[in-house]
Amino acid sequence: MASVCPLSYRYGSGEMRNLLSRENLLNKMVYVEKAVMRSLEEAGFAPRGCSEEVEKAGARVAVEDVDRMERETGHDTASLAILLAEHSGICGRYVHLGVTSNDVIDTAWALVLREALDLLLDRLAKVIAKIASLAREYRDLVCIGRTHGQHALPITLGFKFANYVYELARSYERIVEARKRLVRCKISGAVGTMAAWGEKGLIVQRTACRELGLEPHSITTQIAPRDGYAELVANLSILASQLDRLALEIRELARPEIGEVVIAPKMIGSSTMPHKNNPVVAERISGLSRILRGLAVSALENIVTMHERDLSNSSCERLLLPHTLLVADQMLIDTEKVLGSIRINREAIKRNLELLRGVIASECLMVKLVLKSGMPRHEAHRALSLLVRRSLDERRDFLEVFRESDLSSKLDSSDAYECFNYENYLGSYRELIDRALSYAENVLGKR
Amino acid sequence: MASVCPLSYRYGSGEMRNLLSRENLLNKMVYVEKAVMRSLEEAGFAPRGCSEEVEKAGARVAVEDVDRMERETGHDTASLAILLAEHSGICGRYVHLGVTSNDVIDTAWALVLREALDLLLDRLAKVIAKIASLAREYRDLVCIGRTHGQHALPITLGFKFANYVYELARSYERIVEARKRLVRCKISGAVGTMAAWGEKGLIVQRTACRELGLEPHSITTQIAPRDGYAELVANLSILASQLDRLALEIRELARPEIGEVVIAPKMIGSSTMPHKNNPVVAERISGLSRILRGLAVSALENIVTMHERDLSNSSCERLLLPHTLLVADQMLIDTEKVLGSIRINREAIKRNLELLRGVIASECLMVKLVLKSGMPRHEAHRALSLLVRRSLDERRDFLEVFRESDLSSKLDSSDAYECFNYENYLGSYRELIDRALSYAENVLGKR
Amino acid sequence: MASVCPLSYRYGSGEMRNLLSRENLLNKMVYVEKAVMRSLEEAGFAPRGCSEEVEKAGARVAVEDVDRMERETGHDTASLAILLAEHSGICGRYVHLGVTSNDVIDTAWALVLREALDLLLDRLAKVIAKIASLAREYRDLVCIGRTHGQHALPITLGFKFANYVYELARSYERIVEARKRLVRCKISGAVGTMAAWGEKGLIVQRTACRELGLEPHSITTQIAPRDGYAELVANLSILASQLDRLALEIRELARPEIGEVVIAPKMIGSSTMPHKNNPVVAERISGLSRILRGLAVSALENIVTMHERDLSNSSCERLLLPHTLLVADQMLIDTEKVLGSIRINREAIKRNLELLRGVIASECLMVKLVLKSGMPRHEAHRALSLLVRRSLDERRDFLEVFRESDLSSKLDSSDAYECFNYENYLGSYRELIDRALSYAENVLGKR
Amino acid sequence: MASVCPLSYRYGSGEMRNLLSRENLLNKMVYVEKAVMRSLEEAGFAPRGCSEEVEKAGARVAVEDVDRMERETGHDTASLAILLAEHSGICGRYVHLGVTSNDVIDTAWALVLREALDLLLDRLAKVIAKIASLAREYRDLVCIGRTHGQHALPITLGFKFANYVYELARSYERIVEARKRLVRCKISGAVGTMAAWGEKGLIVQRTACRELGLEPHSITTQIAPRDGYAELVANLSILASQLDRLALEIRELARPEIGEVVIAPKMIGSSTMPHKNNPVVAERISGLSRILRGLAVSALENIVTMHERDLSNSSCERLLLPHTLLVADQMLIDTEKVLGSIRINREAIKRNLELLRGVIASECLMVKLVLKSGMPRHEAHRALSLLVRRSLDERRDFLEVFRESDLSSKLDSSDAYECFNYENYLGSYRELIDRALSYAENVLGKR
Repeated sequence: MASVCPLSYRYGSGEMRNLLSRENLLNKMVYVEKAVMRSLEEAGFAPRGCSEEVEKAGARVAVEDVDRMERETGHDTASLAILLAEHSGICGRYVHLGVTSNDVIDTAWALVLREALDLLLDRLAKVIAKIASLAREYRDLVCIGRTHGQHALPITLGFKFANYVYELARSYERIVEARKRLVRCKISGAVGTMAAWGEKGLIVQRTACRELGLEPHSITTQIAPRDGYAELVANLSILASQLDRLALEIRELARPEIGEVVIAPKMIGSSTMPHKNNPVVAERISGLSRILRGLAVSALENIVTMHERDLSNSSCERLLLPHTLLVADQMLIDTEKVLGSIRINREAIKRNLELLRGVIASECLMVKLVLKSGMPRHEAHRALSLLVRRSLDERRDFLEVFRESDLSSKLDSSDAYECFNYENYLGSYRELIDRALSYAENVLGKR
Repeated sequence: MASVCPLSYRYGSGEMRNLLSRENLLNKMVYVEKAVMRSLEEAGFAPRGCSEEVEKAGARVAVEDVDRMERETGHDTASLAILLAEHSGICGRYVHLGVTSNDVIDTAWALVLREALDLLLDRLAKVIAKIASLAREYRDLVCIGRTHGQHALPITLGFKFANYVYELARSYERIVEARKRLVRCKISGAVGTMAAWGEKGLIVQRTACRELGLEPHSITTQIAPRDGYAELVANLSILASQLDRLALEIRELARPEIGEVVIAPKMIGSSTMPHKNNPVVAERISGLSRILRGLAVSALENIVTMHERDLSNSSCERLLLPHTLLVADQMLIDTEKVLGSIRINREAIKRNLELLRGVIASECLMVKLVLKSGMPRHEAHRALSLLVRRSLDERRDFLEVFRESDLSSKLDSSDAYECFNYENYLGSYRELIDRALSYAENVLGKR
Repeated sequence: MASVCPLSYRYGSGEMRNLLSRENLLNKMVYVEKAVMRSLEEAGFAPRGCSEEVEKAGARVAVEDVDRMERETGHDTASLAILLAEHSGICGRYVHLGVTSNDVIDTAWALVLREALDLLLDRLAKVIAKIASLAREYRDLVCIGRTHGQHALPITLGFKFANYVYELARSYERIVEARKRLVRCKISGAVGTMAAWGEKGLIVQRTACRELGLEPHSITTQIAPRDGYAELVANLSILASQLDRLALEIRELARPEIGEVVIAPKMIGSSTMPHKNNPVVAERISGLSRILRGLAVSALENIVTMHERDLSNSSCERLLLPHTLLVADQMLIDTEKVLGSIRINREAIKRNLELLRGVIASECLMVKLVLKSGMPRHEAHRALSLLVRRSLDERRDFLEVFRESDLSSKLDSSDAYECFNYENYLGSYRELIDRALSYAENVLGKR
Repeated sequence: MASVCPLSYRYGSGEMRNLLSRENLLNKMVYVEKAVMRSLEEAGFAPRGCSEEVEKAGARVAVEDVDRMERETGHDTASLAILLAEHSGICGRYVHLGVTSNDVIDTAWALVLREALDLLLDRLAKVIAKIASLAREYRDLVCIGRTHGQHALPITLGFKFANYVYELARSYERIVEARKRLVRCKISGAVGTMAAWGEKGLIVQRTACRELGLEPHSITTQIAPRDGYAELVANLSILASQLDRLALEIRELARPEIGEVVIAPKMIGSSTMPHKNNPVVAERISGLSRILRGLAVSALENIVTMHERDLSNSSCERLLLPHTLLVADQMLIDTEKVLGSIRINREAIKRNLELLRGVIASECLMVKLVLKSGMPRHEAHRALSLLVRRSLDERRDFLEVFRESDLSSKLDSSDAYECFNYENYLGSYRELIDRALSYAENVLGKR
């Protein structure tokens, strides 16, 4: 088999890949057929013991067998049902009775998704925990905060990380909330009415769902409503975009001119430039997030199914679901890897903080001018802007320029001086970090 | 002013348009500046009474004034702050003190979104209620269920509608859940640390948030995290796609060959064909949903802000937010309109149910063959498929073809006959409709 | 290896899959390294004969070898270069000299794309030819033209098909035009200056390009500009959406209530409903088009590479390129299959044409009223609209209703009657079909 | 009228806004109705002179009149036709005869698009010319080339700009090529057959098209095929992404730690931080490009119209078309503005070039080691990598570290030394710049 998809060999963990493999999906489908048989027993349609027969039959059916039969029948789930029936002896006649293909497919996917989301949430929890520990470790390390790529005000590195903790915890919360709409049993027959089971449809559904440990949808057409999948892909695209943001942060901080973050070197950075050391894992995260942003669109279109369903979601989802989950999986793995491999360069952080010779104290001075001298805020703003310009143009320390100016007479020199001690200008960063961490703890505890 | 955007004059309600107008956004920004001033008073930075001055000043500043000043300053929020200061007398010096533009913008948008979501949720509740009433009215009206555009099994029209009730209620639930992450106060200064307010940042934030009736974010950069907006747009895109599905349902059922739904005629259907009566409102819904599916992508990209924020979300959101909300608004209005204008053609429904001469009874016969004669399910399936072919090719009633076949000897004739009485083959549709309706009631009750 | 991607086993031809396999990409990369070595010989950097050594070395390197070495080096292209060097004896020292990874990757992809586009254009040409033959076969078969899903005016089935010929020929033309921007040699070193080859860069590039039969880009950064890939994916998404439109046409015409197209039945249409015969191949086309519409977004984002390139396009493209091409491949295969499997039901076409009892003659009557009786067009429109309403409400033939009306006195009865002979109301359909077919011939001839 | 869309007042030039206004679209629709009347005269359907009457009538119809009548009729184009008829005296009866709404709408849009594309191509040509002049001005200014955000090899600033010249010229070429598929006359009646004009359809079409200076489509349904609009939006999204790349380049180079580009300061950079000077125009470009990437998806979906058309493209396009063009317009205006406002900091460029103490010479040394000493390339690569590590870790000049190493014995010291004179390591940059510029000249000349 030619390898054409990097998800087959390159991206995603082995664990997730196994979960999403055709082989596992087949197992889950067998498991659903067994649960249905169990419920047919319960409802009195099939003799006791048939569900065990289906299970045994399932152990004898491989993906290749289904493929072979599909070439004859043109229908993969029907082929599985026939194969299970053929291997279930006397019970074979009841296999798939009253069940439509998407009872099996959608419910098997619910089982896969339950595990896949567990895996993703575990990974996300680990990523959040890692960033939280960085937030604690660097809680008080003052660094420059940047807006528009330009120097804004001092923050601490821990404060920077704490923002990611909060943002990712919001994703965690979102996925947990969405799960209850997504991971549901869909066993209700060809158009959702359970007609084939007569009066006993609800018994069949209840029993099968209980067997599988899933709640049923309140009502369905032939298929579970596709807003669930769209919500999943949207949520993972949001998460992916957050991870892209974190990756971009690291890629930028690792630029040689900035150097606040150092990437541990690999053996070969470039095939032709021996000196290259590239943030390739972070870049991979950014690249993969684009796939998820694109697939969000595909997932949305699948909602628009015709009447009691048309099939066009099917081919789309065969790609969409494994790709979304494996890409998200790889991105979380990569994020953990990146976070584990970076080193913080305190010296560069300090150098950058001083880079603009103190102009970043301008807001502090403005506030003091207002509060202490009674100068209107926007006049102070304007006057300080001019001094900043001079400081930058003449490459002189801002404090010096300030002291020479008329403005300096309006403030005690200790007041002015204080503004240049950036540790004094960090506001409530500690409490805010704590708030972010406890938000995350709260959210992670709720799963 | 040239009209270039149909949202200015054509799509969206006047109510929503006012809410999203520059004028209202300006009002909300003033309101935030006032709340901030109130909190500066509380924290002891500004004298008591200044917040009322800001409010009065706000009444004297119009959009055009801000525009005029922006041409000088190059910054719209800063211009507003200056104008407010100029009109606030002695209090002017404290206006916008320690506040960054996005404290004002993001929080003003939270206020707008709170009202906009109320409006959308109201409309959505009405749409759900209308469909629920149709589900009740047509609870027992048997019609054909269609999968792949082909006849599948009988359902009832009420059952069809009940699926939409469930699906839309899931959207309602989703929006309500997302709201708590979205509608939040962002008042934390230039990089989120609240540095300008020294030790008193948390007091300032708490007071302002309380004034505005909003919960604050746990932590922020210069801006509120953009996953909130992305979640909003994703949720409204999901809703839009569901409404597109409903619109498509109606467009298809209104085809002359199907005719189960009749669209009330307008005066002019086509500019050249006097006979045309087109489902234009439903088609408009489908068209607008495409805008939202596209904008979902733009919203996702905005999450990827650099360091403590870059500005690239800004220009994007100036379009994204009003467009998303107004388009969703129009789609809900249109859906209500469509649902109010359709008429059900019972005769067509009956005709279509009989169109395939009874072959839709095949599943029922299959189940009975299995349960009563012990025939294996997939053999019964295959045998019935051949009879179906014959019935369709020879244009003979399926019951007749069945009776002539070997299969008929395996079933009592009353058993077989029963399958052709479609009212008997609706499974648990009543309970399922009830489940859908009570799911919706539950969800709508929770807001 | 677990199968997680349906492109590995389900979608796309074997031919395209081989072309896009890692194995083939590796072969093409070796081929590029050989061409580069040939050009190093030509420029006097390497001894004559080395390129043959590289070729031989390439035959001894397998994907697994590269994988193994990548685990050490962390760089796949560098690993290949090392392996080739190790197997090239004395020539090994010159392997990959002055070449950056993307010289090899981008140029190898240009070679793959040249063949892949040939394959796609061949398939598209066949699809167009097939539709053109349907357009000819059914040139004069009158059927109803539908707008808004409603009956509009008569057309012919051939005219319907001819529109698809024109539309798809536009895609063909677009792909051919885009190819010259896409299929280009990128051999210019680590930042595009060809610095490693001193004065001889242009000789190296010219020789290598000539060896490979490719034109070079005029200039590049480290990589070929990504607008080329975005254009490719956009063009294939446009094509995919056109095929989706054709698939939708067939799905709708195959509805039992319409029945103008009949899908040849497969053995199993539904796993539970023996009577189902579903247009599954057409539905598959619709579903796959969604993947391409989504990936268009991913391809656009890749354009935004930082400075002389960042790596984030790389992970994205590992999925994007094979997926786009294989999905398009499958869609064209499926379209050919669908077109080969449908049967036209003349009787249903005739029945539908008469379904609305002649009201589709209203435009014709309006025009005659204007031209013959001098009645203003919009008055005739209004008057006829009312008669149409009556005809539909009372279920009476429109001709009859017209004759009873005041309007009938304004026209000769033969004039009115003529309007109901739909063969007379087909305008210039023959010439238009001819124009469409000759447009396509023209375009296809130009490749 | 409340302002809810920034395209009404903030983004896009007045020129483009006028072109895309409802008012102008109405004018163009009148112009098309006049051309049609002219062709009805030519075909003998209407008396000579009527087209002038229609023109005069058009001058008396305003947008508000159409709105008013649409409220009655529910159809905007039909309302226009009625109003024109009412004001055209005796000729009124022939107005819109045989014409369907989209004959008027699609053709009016072709007229708008012809001018809009002229405007965009003019702007794009200016942008390209500006970058070309920068490429010439800084042709020989050596700066560091960056890949992965890391220092790669020296390039020149002119070489950097020349890449943008090439890339944007490719967009120019693409738009010119696409124009012939897009800007076409659609005059063919309700289903495209021209039936209302009997034998004279082709005469009507030919005359009207000639009047308007447009080529007709070879064939159409009720509407022009929508792949044309999708291609337009895709092409402008590609262009937008290229401009985003350029904006990102400038934003990054303007970071204080890099400082190679200096943004001219505005009066107010931040509403609270007097020192801020932000690249807001470049950031606006990046933000707006996201809107276009999203709308590309909407445009693709519009292709999938049902049978001879459904209406769902209509509501979508009312937003899509003006938004796409105005956003692209603003982005080009902004790009010109940014390019005009930046200053190059030669000192920073020089400083950055030396930042890594010479390790960027490693490729050069590797090549010389291979060519002069016969060392295998990958061994030289490995050995140099280790020296680079040492240089960076010990913060010593790479030349010094190299000289101390065993490797240095393999090269003449002048050879090694030469590698550190970066002007010697720029390859064929001059010829490549020339190639890029002449590619652009060629392409721009072809319009």
